[in-house]
Amino acid sequence: MATDALRGGIDLGGTKIQAIVADPEHQVLGQARRATPTEGGPPDVIAAMADALDEALESANLKPEALTGGIGVGAPGAIDTKAGTLARAGNLPGWRDAYPMAKELGKRFGGATVKLGNDVQVATNAEFTLGAAREFSTLLGVFWGTGVGGGIVLDGKPWLGRGAAGEIGHIPVRHHGLKCPCGRIGCMEAYAGRRAMELRARKAHDEGEKTDLFKIMEEKGRDRLTSGIWERAIERGDDLAERLIDDAVDALGRAVAAACNVLDPDAIIIGGGLGVRFGEPYARRISDAMMPHLFHDDDPPVMRVAELGDLGGALGAALLVVKA
Amino acid sequence: MATDALRGGIDLGGTKIQAIVADPEHQVLGQARRATPTEGGPPDVIAAMADALDEALESANLKPEALTGGIGVGAPGAIDTKAGTLARAGNLPGWRDAYPMAKELGKRFGGATVKLGNDVQVATNAEFTLGAAREFSTLLGVFWGTGVGGGIVLDGKPWLGRGAAGEIGHIPVRHHGLKCPCGRIGCMEAYAGRRAMELRARKAHDEGEKTDLFKIMEEKGRDRLTSGIWERAIERGDDLAERLIDDAVDALGRAVAAACNVLDPDAIIIGGGLGVRFGEPYARRISDAMMPHLFHDDDPPVMRVAELGDLGGALGAALLVVKA
Repeated sequence: MATDALRGGIDLGGTKIQAIVADPEHQVLGQARRATPTEGGPPDVIAAMADALDEALESANLKPEALTGGIGVGAPGAIDTKAGTLARAGNLPGWRDAYPMAKELGKRFGGATVKLGNDVQVATNAEFTLGAAREFSTLLGVFWGTGVGGGIVLDGKPWLGRGAAGEIGHIPVRHHGLKCPCGRIGCMEAYAGRRAMELRARKAHDEGEKTDLFKIMEEKGRDRLTSGIWERAIERGDDLAERLIDDAVDALGRAVAAACNVLDPDAIIIGGGLGVRFGEPYARRISDAMMPHLFHDDDPPVMRVAELGDLGGALGAALLVVKA
Repeated sequence: MATDALRGGIDLGGTKIQAIVADPEHQVLGQARRATPTEGGPPDVIAAMADALDEALESANLKPEALTGGIGVGAPGAIDTKAGTLARAGNLPGWRDAYPMAKELGKRFGGATVKLGNDVQVATNAEFTLGAAREFSTLLGVFWGTGVGGGIVLDGKPWLGRGAAGEIGHIPVRHHGLKCPCGRIGCMEAYAGRRAMELRARKAHDEGEKTDLFKIMEEKGRDRLTSGIWERAIERGDDLAERLIDDAVDALGRAVAAACNVLDPDAIIIGGGLGVRFGEPYARRISDAMMPHLFHDDDPPVMRVAELGDLGGALGAALLVVKA
C-alpha cells in the first residue's frame, strides 16, 4: 500500500449516512451526507452509502478508484468483521439477516477493501486516536443521541467483549422506572435517549402540559425533536424540556458512574448529537450527577466533550483500514 | 527457582486471615486461619499474618525457610505492587499510610519474595486459573460477603483500571435508596453487603419487627450475623431475613447486569461468604434478577458458583508468585 493512499469512511446511522474521504494524515478531503433510507432493504441502504461516498469523492475531484487505502464503515447491529457482514440492524430497513455489506460496497469502488466496525466503537476510537482523548490510554466514550451508546478503549485497544460491550444505555438506573424503547424497565436510555425523551414529551403534551417543544419543531420544519430543538426550548426556559433534560442528566450521571466503578478509566468523552450540541456545560452537569456515585472519587476520570463533532464516526470508520 | 518450590498464600480479610502452603501443582499442603487483629496497627496485622503462615507450615511439617517459591498476599486497600506497600486499608486497624508489608513479612520467612495483590482480584484470578472459570477467557467475579467486591479478567488478564476497577458493590441500584456503609446513597452493597444487611436487620428488630436472626446469633454464640446465621434464618422461614435477602438478590442482579452491559463477559462467578454459602439456588436467583436488565440476553454469560470456597483467596494470593 502506498503511504499516500486515500481512505473512505462511512458512518451509517439510523437517520443519516455521513461519508468522508481522508488522506494519510486524517485530513478530510471531501464529505457528503445523505438520509438513511427508511424503506427497502440492505441493497437500498448500500446504494445510499455508495452514493454518499461518491459525492464525497466528487467534492474532492476524485474518482471511485481513488480509495486505494480501503473503506471503513461504522454500523449499528451485529457485525462479523471477518465475514464482512452486518445483521440485526434494527434501525435500518429490512435488515435482519446477515448481509455481505463489505463485498457489495467494495464492488462499487473498484473492489476496494471494506472493513466494518461498530458505530459507537469507531467513534470512540476516533476520539482516542485523533480527538479529545489522545493523551489517555483507557477511555469510556458516551454517545448521547437518539439512543445512548458507550465505547470502550482499554490500554489502547477497543474492548468489545463478545460483541455487545459498552451498552451503557441499558444500565438500569431506576427501580420502578420508565419503559425503554428496548422494552426493558428503567434503562438509562429511557430517560436520556432522544427517542425516549420525545415520547415522554409527546405524552406530556397530549396530556395538556404546556411546552414549546412542538411549536419549535414546526417553526424549524422538522418532524421530530432534534438536538437543536431541545437546545432552543431550554434557551426559552421551557419547563417540560428542562425537566426531561434534568432527568436525562441524572440518568447519564448514574450510568456513567456505574460504568466507571466497573472500568476505572482515565477519561470519559461525551459525544453524540445531544452531547456535542449541549457541550461543556452539560458535560459538567453529567459529571456533577456522576460524582455522588463514583467510588474512586478522590481521582475522578477526566471528562471532555468529543472534539471531532459530526465527522467523528466517519473518521473513526476510516481508521478501520489504516494499516498498523 | 526449582520447579518443586513451595509457595505461601495469605488472604488478608477484615475479619479473618487465611494462610496456605501450596505446592507447584497448587495442592494445599497446609493451612491455618486466624482472626484479624482489631486493634494496633500494621506491625500487629503482619505479625498475625506471619503466625498464620507459620501455623500452616507447621501443619505440613515444614520450616519457615521452605517457601522458596515466595509468598503472595491478597489484601484490601490501596496496593503499590512495585513498592510492596499497602495503604488506606479501612477494614484493618490503624492502616492509613503506606506500610512496607512485603518487606516486613518477607523478613519472617528467610527473606522470601512477597508480592501483594487486591484481595478480590486474586480470588477472581484463582477461579479463572484453578476453579469454576477455567475454560473462559473473560470473567466477572462477584464476591458477596461483608461487602460486595468485583474482580475482572479480560482476555485472560486481570483488569484493574487505575487500581479501583471492579467496584460493583457501589453501582447505584436505587434512585432514592438506602445509605451504604461507604456513605453513598443507593449502592448495591447497601442492600447486598452483609454488614449493611445486619444494620437493616438490627434497625427493624429495634423497631419491634419479629425476627429470629438475633436469637440464632445468640444460640451460635456469635456477635454478628454470619452467613450461616442468615442461612439458618431463611431455613426457618424468617420473614425479615427473607425480605432482606430478596432485596440483596434484586440489588445484586441489577448491578451484575450493569457490569455485564459494560463488559459483556463470557462468565460470572459468584463467590464470597454469602455467595458460597447460598450456592447454586441463589446464583440462579441472582441470574433471574439480572436477566431483565441484561442487554445481550439472547446469549447471557454463564453463571457459576466459585469452586475453591474459603481457600480461593489464599490460592489466588499464592498464584501471585508463580513464575510465568
